[in-house]
Amino acid sequence: MFKEFLNKLKNKKRIGVFSHLRPDGDCVGSQIALCRWLEKNGYEAKAFNEDDVPLNLMWLLDYFPIQKPTEEMVASCDLIILVDGNAVHRFGELEEWQKKYSLPMMIVDHHPDPENGFDVMVSVPEASSTCELIYKLFSEHDAEQIDEDTAKALYTGIITDTGSLQFDSVTPETVEITADLLRRGNFKPNEIIEELYSNKKLAQYKLLSKALTTIELYQDNHIAVMYVTQQMMDDTGTSNVDTDGFVNYPLSLQGVKAAIIFKDLNEDGIKMSLRSRSEIDVNIWARQLGGGGHKKAAGAWHPGPLEKAIADTIEIGKKQL
Amino acid sequence: MFKEFLNKLKNKKRIGVFSHLRPDGDCVGSQIALCRWLEKNGYEAKAFNEDDVPLNLMWLLDYFPIQKPTEEMVASCDLIILVDGNAVHRFGELEEWQKKYSLPMMIVDHHPDPENGFDVMVSVPEASSTCELIYKLFSEHDAEQIDEDTAKALYTGIITDTGSLQFDSVTPETVEITADLLRRGNFKPNEIIEELYSNKKLAQYKLLSKALTTIELYQDNHIAVMYVTQQMMDDTGTSNVDTDGFVNYPLSLQGVKAAIIFKDLNEDGIKMSLRSRSEIDVNIWARQLGGGGHKKAAGAWHPGPLEKAIADTIEIGKKQL
Repeated sequence: MFKEFLNKLKNKKRIGVFSHLRPDGDCVGSQIALCRWLEKNGYEAKAFNEDDVPLNLMWLLDYFPIQKPTEEMVASCDLIILVDGNAVHRFGELEEWQKKYSLPMMIVDHHPDPENGFDVMVSVPEASSTCELIYKLFSEHDAEQIDEDTAKALYTGIITDTGSLQFDSVTPETVEITADLLRRGNFKPNEIIEELYSNKKLAQYKLLSKALTTIELYQDNHIAVMYVTQQMMDDTGTSNVDTDGFVNYPLSLQGVKAAIIFKDLNEDGIKMSLRSRSEIDVNIWARQLGGGGHKKAAGAWHPGPLEKAIADTIEIGKKQL
Repeated sequence: MFKEFLNKLKNKKRIGVFSHLRPDGDCVGSQIALCRWLEKNGYEAKAFNEDDVPLNLMWLLDYFPIQKPTEEMVASCDLIILVDGNAVHRFGELEEWQKKYSLPMMIVDHHPDPENGFDVMVSVPEASSTCELIYKLFSEHDAEQIDEDTAKALYTGIITDTGSLQFDSVTPETVEITADLLRRGNFKPNEIIEELYSNKKLAQYKLLSKALTTIELYQDNHIAVMYVTQQMMDDTGTSNVDTDGFVNYPLSLQGVKAAIIFKDLNEDGIKMSLRSRSEIDVNIWARQLGGGGHKKAAGAWHPGPLEKAIADTIEIGKKQL
């Protein structure tokens, strides 16, 4: 799988590895593990991201530092590797710099439909996570190079991108890989889980409390809707990031086939996240609202107001049932 | 591990397999898988439980029926096997009947400190779940006997008793077993996860919404307290079972070392569940309130009223910090 990738690395020295904007566990985990692999194999690796690493992933920076890139830093690289993203614009200013420097560029990613123009693509949409792919880079090359810190970084990405091995992207092999990582890393799952999920803020629960009271069911309880407003955030001292995971509440209701969270955040319209746990294709649904995404998770915007956004969305969703 | 167990089965014909009262995924999963093993190996198996199987596990009954036992049914068995419990009183009326009939009795269990008096004990407190032990019965004997339905039953027990492979009881071997079950059962994790966790009631969220507003932090944010009252249940049309999992909310707050949920349910006092995610031993804590349990999860009662129960509990907990 990594033959072309390894060929392209030959004669290169300084490699810039980017994780995507608004970084998550999988992009940070794979970035750090890949940088560690590069250093173990004689390359000079630099890890870049324009955004801050979220609080619950900060501990991973002990294993490899991630820095904010400058044009100068990037221009001094011999090669750029993008992890966990399939379009250069998802990596920030790099897109502009690249027009100027045309550095060789590779991706390692599991998102569908990558854009053209990369020198090498390790693109495996059926993989559970990019960390699963980086694990394969190690195991194809020399699995003994997976040390404790690398194991923890890779484990983090697989766990966060699969909802703790619960999604349909998980294969028996994915699960075996996590077992191997637990063994090589000599750690217990709860050590990582604690870091990732046990740092909720009380304000977040106050917001969740308000959001839960807004849930309404439509279409014979097959569609569930929840909303969050700027007022609710102001009252609780929270912001948009604090709604992370909220959509899973309406989605877990008995009989619900699809759920939508509407965010009315004093922005230019209402932001919607659509989720399916049935044959309903929320990508088709979202496209009719001018958005898009995947079959099971998609997003769209509505000019508002909130009530109209909900009514219009349900009207379109009806046809999906 | 199962040598003595297999010896004891010799010359037996009708085997009664009990899961414990208020059954959960691990006891039902192991009971069903064990009954299927017994039938595949020439025994007549009966699965018994006095209580109803919870809604989210009902689908498992397609793989093997569980019936409410009568004295007559039990008396006609040659042998009784208890799964996922280490004391006969946890299995209901069986305790009385057993005094009369003194049937040979075995346990397969992973709880610490089993009581005396069983003919054979497969007691492995360090196992993640009883299903992990039943998996070993199959694999020591003939792993090919793990068919699709058996794989799903065993997977259910391991997943529910480990919080989706997140607890510190999970070893690399536990994870490898789930990979083997996914492969043999030819299913995706989300098929089971949906059955187990996606049947929430809207009323339950209305209760959760109210409960979340009660969270208070004590002792430098190291102790978190949440409460639920009968009034809150009446207002939302819910009951005690709907508070399942609520304690995980205060427990997941940043910096929290232990959390307690107080339930003031018009009963004879206040019911408390204590949870730790630190070196705080909530068993010691609960014992000082006349209760007990494990290091990380314990329970106790307080005569009330609620405010006094909280104040007294915090006072005792202080010494644990």
